[in-house]
Amino acid sequence: MAKANVKEQIVTTSLQLLHSKGFNATSVQDITDAAGVPKGSFYNHFTSKEALGLEVLQRYTEGVGQMTALLRDRSLPPLQRLQQYFARMIEGNAANEFQFGCLLGNFSTELSNQIPAMRSAMREAFDGSSAVLAAVIAEGQQDGSIKSDAPATELASFVNDAWQGAVMRAKAEQSREPLERFARVVLGRILS
Amino acid sequence: MAKANVKEQIVTTSLQLLHSKGFNATSVQDITDAAGVPKGSFYNHFTSKEALGLEVLQRYTEGVGQMTALLRDRSLPPLQRLQQYFARMIEGNAANEFQFGCLLGNFSTELSNQIPAMRSAMREAFDGSSAVLAAVIAEGQQDGSIKSDAPATELASFVNDAWQGAVMRAKAEQSREPLERFARVVLGRILS
Repeated sequence: MAKANVKEQIVTTSLQLLHSKGFNATSVQDITDAAGVPKGSFYNHFTSKEALGLEVLQRYTEGVGQMTALLRDRSLPPLQRLQQYFARMIEGNAANEFQFGCLLGNFSTELSNQIPAMRSAMREAFDGSSAVLAAVIAEGQQDGSIKSDAPATELASFVNDAWQGAVMRAKAEQSREPLERFARVVLGRILS
Repeated sequence: MAKANVKEQIVTTSLQLLHSKGFNATSVQDITDAAGVPKGSFYNHFTSKEALGLEVLQRYTEGVGQMTALLRDRSLPPLQRLQQYFARMIEGNAANEFQFGCLLGNFSTELSNQIPAMRSAMREAFDGSSAVLAAVIAEGQQDGSIKSDAPATELASFVNDAWQGAVMRAKAEQSREPLERFARVVLGRILS
C-alpha cells in the first residue's frame, strides 16, 4: 500500500472505531489490525494516538460542515431548512441505531481534560455549527416565521447544545425518541 | 482498615477519579493507589471494574436525587424552585471549574455501548430527574406562571437533555457561559 494510502486507511478506520468505541477503549493495535496495516506503520504517520485523535476530529468536523450546507440553501424558507437539517441529522444517528452518538460530543466528555489540544478544535467545531444555525434563525426572525426575539446567536448556541444533549440521551437509551422530542420542542415551540 | 471501610474508600475515591478522568482512562491500579489500599483488595469487593462503575453511578445518582429535593419544596413558587435548582447545579459545575461534566453524561457517551448493564441504570437516573422536573413544570402550568401548554413530561425531558448538552459544552470550553445561556433560555423563554 502506498504511504499516503496507509495514512488514509488509518484515518478512515479510526474515524469508525473511535466513534463507535471511544478513544481510550481503542488501542493503536485495534486500529492497525482493523486497518490491515502493520502496527509499526502507525508511527510513520502519527506522532501519537492523540495526534491521530485530532486528525479524526478534523475529518469528522468536515463531514458535519458538509451537512450544514443544507442550512445555507436559500431556495427553501428558514424553518423548512431547519426541519430538513435536523431530520437528516436524526437519520444519521438512526444509521448506527443511535448507538454511536456524535463524535464531537463523545470527545468533549471523554477528552476535554485528557487532551487539552482538542479543546480548541472542539470549540471551533461547535462555534462553526452554531454560526450557521444563527444565520438561519436570524433570517427566520427577519421574515417573521420565527417569533422569538432572543438574539439569534443565543438561540443557535442553545439549540446546538440541546441537540448534543438529545444525542447523548438517544445513545444512552438507544432510542430515537430523544431526537424526535428535540425536533418537536425546538422546531414546534422555541423556533416557531 | 476494616473490610467495609476498604470498600467505601474504593467507591468514594473512584467517584472522584472516574468523574474527573473517565472510566477507560482510569485503571484499577490508579484507583487502589489513590484509595491507599492493596490492589488485590479490589477484587475482594468488586467482581470487575465494570461492577465498580455501576456502584459509582448508583452513588452519583443518589447525590443528584438529593439535589432534586429542592424542586419538591412547595414553600417556594415553581419557577423560583427551578431557578434555585439550576443555579445550584451551575455552582456544582463551577466547583470543578467546569472540567468534570456530569458523571451520568460522561458515562452515557463513553459506556452506553461498552457496558450494556449501565444503560438501565442511566435510563432510571434520567427518568428520575425528568419526573421531578415534570412535576414542578406541571405545577407552574397549573398556577399560570408557566405559559407553555406543551405536556410537562415533554418539556421536562427536553430540558433535562438540554442541560446535559450545556454541561458537555461547558466542559469542552471549560466555561460557565453555556450553563448561564441554558438558564437564560430555559427559565427566561421556554418555561416562562
